[in-house]
Amino acid sequence: MQLKPIGIIHSPYRDRKGCPPQGREEICWIEVSEQYEEGLKDIDGFSHLILFYWLHCSKNYSLSVKTPWDSEPHGVFATRSPNRPNALGFSVVELIERDGNKLKVKGLDALEGTPLIDIKPYLPEIDSKTNVRVGWVKETDFSKVYGKSFKESKHVQ
Amino acid sequence: MQLKPIGIIHSPYRDRKGCPPQGREEICWIEVSEQYEEGLKDIDGFSHLILFYWLHCSKNYSLSVKTPWDSEPHGVFATRSPNRPNALGFSVVELIERDGNKLKVKGLDALEGTPLIDIKPYLPEIDSKTNVRVGWVKETDFSKVYGKSFKESKHVQ
Repeated sequence: MQLKPIGIIHSPYRDRKGCPPQGREEICWIEVSEQYEEGLKDIDGFSHLILFYWLHCSKNYSLSVKTPWDSEPHGVFATRSPNRPNALGFSVVELIERDGNKLKVKGLDALEGTPLIDIKPYLPEIDSKTNVRVGWVKETDFSKVYGKSFKESKHVQ
Repeated sequence: MQLKPIGIIHSPYRDRKGCPPQGREEICWIEVSEQYEEGLKDIDGFSHLILFYWLHCSKNYSLSVKTPWDSEPHGVFATRSPNRPNALGFSVVELIERDGNKLKVKGLDALEGTPLIDIKPYLPEIDSKTNVRVGWVKETDFSKVYGKSFKESKHVQ
């Protein structure tokens, strides 16, 4: 199970300290390697894409994780922590524009230089769920955790 | 970028021929390896999980793909074809029950024996999008493509 990069993510976030978890409105550019550009045919018609990438700055993981949301430790699979047994990241992003092998997207929290692994079209009929319970995540208003500046530019809906 | 399995998926689907694309209502069991069981703490509180797995029966990919939805070829990244440069699968599933290191889930289209790579909690505030365009996928009523039996047991919403 060996992954190969299919491109690279260009982001305004240079390090994890400056990178807020989940979806600001900043713009990122996804540069798909030219050898894979043919695979982008017809992608322009989708307003939202699912990006998969390798969290290359992920550090050693722990199975028990503390998050900014509360003071209790949770199992890593019950969190979105980047430090996981397999450092796989994913985001649903808005596709703003395509320019050849480059995709301009909004709502991505990856770091500059993150290796891109896959792109799939977002299909709400299978990817969007209703009547959802979110367990210990009682506070999903990220502005309360990350401050006002996050709220002003937040992407979450 | 080497993935390691964190568990295995037990599914009623034994081969790709019998496995419909995307989300029937059949029940699957996710068996997380005991060494990772601690990472499941508090997962019970989430009604929906995002599963990532390795499409181990995926064959050689092509950048241009024909699907059952229409007769036109599309770029592989504009489709959900399992034959991709990185054979990464993902599904949003409903968590029915947890029994120790085993999770009973609904809405998964993976094959028996599929290696599990990651589990993340589904958070609608960041994972669910509205005002979505789905490009060339004009027919998302899977029953029209896969027949009545699919409609009767379909999971898509």
